[in-house]
Amino acid sequence: VPRYKIKIEYDGTNYCGWQKQHHSVSICAEIEKAIFNFSGENVELYGSGRTDAGVHAYGQIAHFDLNKENISPEKIRLALNFYLKGKMIVIISCEEAAMNFHARFDAIQRSYIYKICHRPSPLTFNYNRMLHIYEKLDLDLMQQAANFLIGQHDFSSLRASDCQAKSPIKKITNIVIIKNGQMIEIHVSARSFLYHMVRNIVGTLRYVANGKMSLEEFKTNFIAKDRSKMGPTAPACGLYLNEIEYL
Amino acid sequence: VPRYKIKIEYDGTNYCGWQKQHHSVSICAEIEKAIFNFSGENVELYGSGRTDAGVHAYGQIAHFDLNKENISPEKIRLALNFYLKGKMIVIISCEEAAMNFHARFDAIQRSYIYKICHRPSPLTFNYNRMLHIYEKLDLDLMQQAANFLIGQHDFSSLRASDCQAKSPIKKITNIVIIKNGQMIEIHVSARSFLYHMVRNIVGTLRYVANGKMSLEEFKTNFIAKDRSKMGPTAPACGLYLNEIEYL
Repeated sequence: VPRYKIKIEYDGTNYCGWQKQHHSVSICAEIEKAIFNFSGENVELYGSGRTDAGVHAYGQIAHFDLNKENISPEKIRLALNFYLKGKMIVIISCEEAAMNFHARFDAIQRSYIYKICHRPSPLTFNYNRMLHIYEKLDLDLMQQAANFLIGQHDFSSLRASDCQAKSPIKKITNIVIIKNGQMIEIHVSARSFLYHMVRNIVGTLRYVANGKMSLEEFKTNFIAKDRSKMGPTAPACGLYLNEIEYL
Repeated sequence: VPRYKIKIEYDGTNYCGWQKQHHSVSICAEIEKAIFNFSGENVELYGSGRTDAGVHAYGQIAHFDLNKENISPEKIRLALNFYLKGKMIVIISCEEAAMNFHARFDAIQRSYIYKICHRPSPLTFNYNRMLHIYEKLDLDLMQQAANFLIGQHDFSSLRASDCQAKSPIKKITNIVIIKNGQMIEIHVSARSFLYHMVRNIVGTLRYVANGKMSLEEFKTNFIAKDRSKMGPTAPACGLYLNEIEYL
């Protein structure tokens, strides 16, 4: 049976997240339904990782197997997009993958973008798509705090209380803060993340940037491994799963 | 009575356009309602120009008078945004203007951006906010055709049949095509435009870029002043009123 790897873009606003749940609509279930509508096959779709309710993606990766053979990947892309019409979920690309390819276990790097619109007035086009911040921000301080997180650390202080991971040790490859007019993007990449880790990083970096936490306090609190001493979890709406890398 | 000048951003998707109409909701009427809710005054709001149903704005300008005196412009901005909450219309700035300032008649330059998303897959985040084009485009040819329109010309060939303007002569200051990944922006500026002129320009430039019309045909057809020989009107959803300039 052939295995397919798909790259997915979605607006997560009206979904309960990537993962299937009873009584609510998930992105994974919508795509499985589209695969069924196109092929008549009930497949299991494996994503590179979950995204929470309201979190978006430019480049979620998933894989699935079809019993039918010899269907061109391009035909699958077109058919899935036809059945996903109006759902704010789009298949960007589809390719045949190796029989043993796994979207989750083979990923060697995950990149997220957290988007902030920094201005006095409320949002229109970016409503539900960016975090709106109006208070003064010191982005140099924010980048200095971010730099302190790069590399391998115990991220207990930035991990959700209900995180299931066995170890709190993670290695952040990079955090880059980019300002373009009123738009601020925080790019964060690592092989993998703890639950809510990116949103907790952003919520805490905001506290450093707006002066609620000094850079020294930030460092001390981070090392103290106490979640309650860091900033709040930033809203889901600003977060985008941007890219998953494989060998 | 003090006169106020406001800068407005809006997502025009769910509106009948700027101009008030019976039985449909206009952006102008929504703002007049917000002004009434805040001040108790029934004012007439004058915009720099109309935008069609589905057309967006980053920088529409309008003015109105209040009988009440001594209200700070910043208080007005906050109050209007409060009453406009959830409507996809936002007041970006508010300032007191000269007694004789007129948002429409005093404008010396109007700039529009037409946004295109050029890729094989349908749109998510930019659905209703950009024109989706998937066919091959030659942007160099497109810019060459655009350059031919810069300056003062008879734009009869790019004017809607129901255009009310007395003269078809307009002077285009500039047309700049900017590509950034899959995003293409066509920036067009002039003191004023004929009805549907920007959308007709874009629809015709697309024909040049995708090969439906040669550059020579484009020039001949434009000079022939025959609307039927040019391209179709590009959809409203890609058009943004970007900036209005005053002396």
